Amino acid sequence: MRTIEWRDGVVATIDQTVLPDKEVWIELRDIGEMASALKEMKMRGAPLIGVAAAYGLALTAYNSKVESREDLLRELEESAETLRMTRPTAVNLFWGIERIVNKAKETRGGAQKLRQTVLAEAEKMADEDVDVNRRIGKHGSNLISDGDIILTHCNAGSLATVDYGTALAVVRVAWEEGKRIKVIADETRPKLQGARLTVYELARDGIPVTLITDNMAGYLMSKGFVQKVIVGADRVVRDAVINKIGTYTVAILAHEHGIPFYVAAPTSTFDLSKESDDVTIEERDPNEVTFVRSVRVAPEDVEVMNPAFDITPLKYVDAIICEDGVLSREEFQRLAEKGTLGTAP
Amino acid sequence: MRTIEWRDGVVATIDQTVLPDKEVWIELRDIGEMASALKEMKMRGAPLIGVAAAYGLALTAYNSKVESREDLLRELEESAETLRMTRPTAVNLFWGIERIVNKAKETRGGAQKLRQTVLAEAEKMADEDVDVNRRIGKHGSNLISDGDIILTHCNAGSLATVDYGTALAVVRVAWEEGKRIKVIADETRPKLQGARLTVYELARDGIPVTLITDNMAGYLMSKGFVQKVIVGADRVVRDAVINKIGTYTVAILAHEHGIPFYVAAPTSTFDLSKESDDVTIEERDPNEVTFVRSVRVAPEDVEVMNPAFDITPLKYVDAIICEDGVLSREEFQRLAEKGTLGTAP
Repeated sequence: MRTIEWRDGVVATIDQTVLPDKEVWIELRDIGEMASALKEMKMRGAPLIGVAAAYGLALTAYNSKVESREDLLRELEESAETLRMTRPTAVNLFWGIERIVNKAKETRGGAQKLRQTVLAEAEKMADEDVDVNRRIGKHGSNLISDGDIILTHCNAGSLATVDYGTALAVVRVAWEEGKRIKVIADETRPKLQGARLTVYELARDGIPVTLITDNMAGYLMSKGFVQKVIVGADRVVRDAVINKIGTYTVAILAHEHGIPFYVAAPTSTFDLSKESDDVTIEERDPNEVTFVRSVRVAPEDVEVMNPAFDITPLKYVDAIICEDGVLSREEFQRLAEKGTLGTAP
Repeated sequence: MRTIEWRDGVVATIDQTVLPDKEVWIELRDIGEMASALKEMKMRGAPLIGVAAAYGLALTAYNSKVESREDLLRELEESAETLRMTRPTAVNLFWGIERIVNKAKETRGGAQKLRQTVLAEAEKMADEDVDVNRRIGKHGSNLISDGDIILTHCNAGSLATVDYGTALAVVRVAWEEGKRIKVIADETRPKLQGARLTVYELARDGIPVTLITDNMAGYLMSKGFVQKVIVGADRVVRDAVINKIGTYTVAILAHEHGIPFYVAAPTSTFDLSKESDDVTIEERDPNEVTFVRSVRVAPEDVEVMNPAFDITPLKYVDAIICEDGVLSREEFQRLAEKGTLGTAP
């Protein structure tokens, strides 16, 4: 299920806020529409956010009437700034922006040439994402045994990427290889990406999935119902994995029950010059907690906390699965220190 | 906030399923209406369920037209059976039933005398519950320091009891004693007792409360935002505490962060002839997970697990606060083995 496409001057994407009720494709025509769609989480998931940012800059280039190279670079920089304000935590946003801006700067020629280059680079990033995800799936599948029940949190599937997913790529490859696996999906409050998106896309592929509320994971682990945990990541820093709120809790539960906890993430999610203390955890609208979709679930005026992400220290992570292979915690730490990981543009 | 009352031949109670939108009192006229109200969780919370069961039998006695003692005892036994089918996990249900049935059996005299006795005993149990809760609050408050932020799960408040609460009794007494505390309430999916009920009753009392989704507790603990955890119990057995789904997860999180985890429960919740393996964990309707109140949140036909309770082994419980005092884990274990605890009728 490809989630984002360039269609003759517009970016087409699935509005994920109305899933699973309807699969509605929307068209984004300029950087303002792209920024709003990101802020409102019509698109979400770190890898998809990165590619969406690239396409956002392609929209700016495509729409621009300027004739000089310098003017176009200035417009791209303005659009980049608009995009940087949308979601602070997923590093792919910044990675996608930098890659496009750097590519434009490096390209010789005038505005017209840069326009073509920017769009071509965005398209290339989208295709690469799919390829990277398939490689993640292939590597990760080696960790999965026939009969495993795999718990996942949030949605690290097709809908979090251009296609195929990260954590769910591992599930997909294992399934395609004939392993009889099942998935347990945490519903993932407040935005219910597990209930709405993970269940939707796995059911669509015919992969068995069971939905639970977030607070059931510990009990199911204690009853032996979970053999592996795989989640995605919004940012992997030197000492921790930053991912959807609730990931840290699942990691501690897995640790306590001796269940392997894996993170599946492309190297575009790695940000190894940073530590967890350097990362801004996005705090979102309290109404996401006091309402479930359109229905109020708490008294008015209640004080709410709504951090969108949390921080899982590496000690709870058994391995990180990236496109280059499965990195055990120790291997990851060694490579991160050597500075030979996450050197993507 | 008294939650249940005998009013001239009917039992009046708050319909908790429509809180916090409206405070609606409903009147239950016979054992069938009482059983339905329990099954649909219009009343919930172990101590309240116990007293409601007693009042249910009082309704049977009050409505009965029989003239012989034996016929009334037979009707009471039939009603007891109806009540036993409503909720399998909270032991107070069985405790409340046994206490009324035994009282009726012990009472000399005819049907009319038994009718009076049964109602008087139900009223006595309701009053005792309030008294017991105040004692729990008093003992538990000794564990609370000025400035503590206390996390609680589900609702172990007035609305889970006849009045005052168990876990929230501790909060109330600490607050009344002038300790500047705050409460963090887990929303407690699927039925949202935390968001709907705990927030409602604490806000009503002017006690500061912050609402979070269940999967945020770990992150807040890691950031130092939680000093104590206090929850209620549906049943305390020799080796574990059985309480609302998600309690086990919170207990592990508290353990991992070195935060004290306390259970506040009256001895009517103790069932020390049993171990956790003996207890039936109620599995409820999948629609509770796939819908939030009236809104669908997951694709149709998805497979769901919906255990209403989980099991927290004693090793994660620092102390149990009952009406007789604060029992450390070791003390509780010693007394449980000696058989000198939980000997209520």
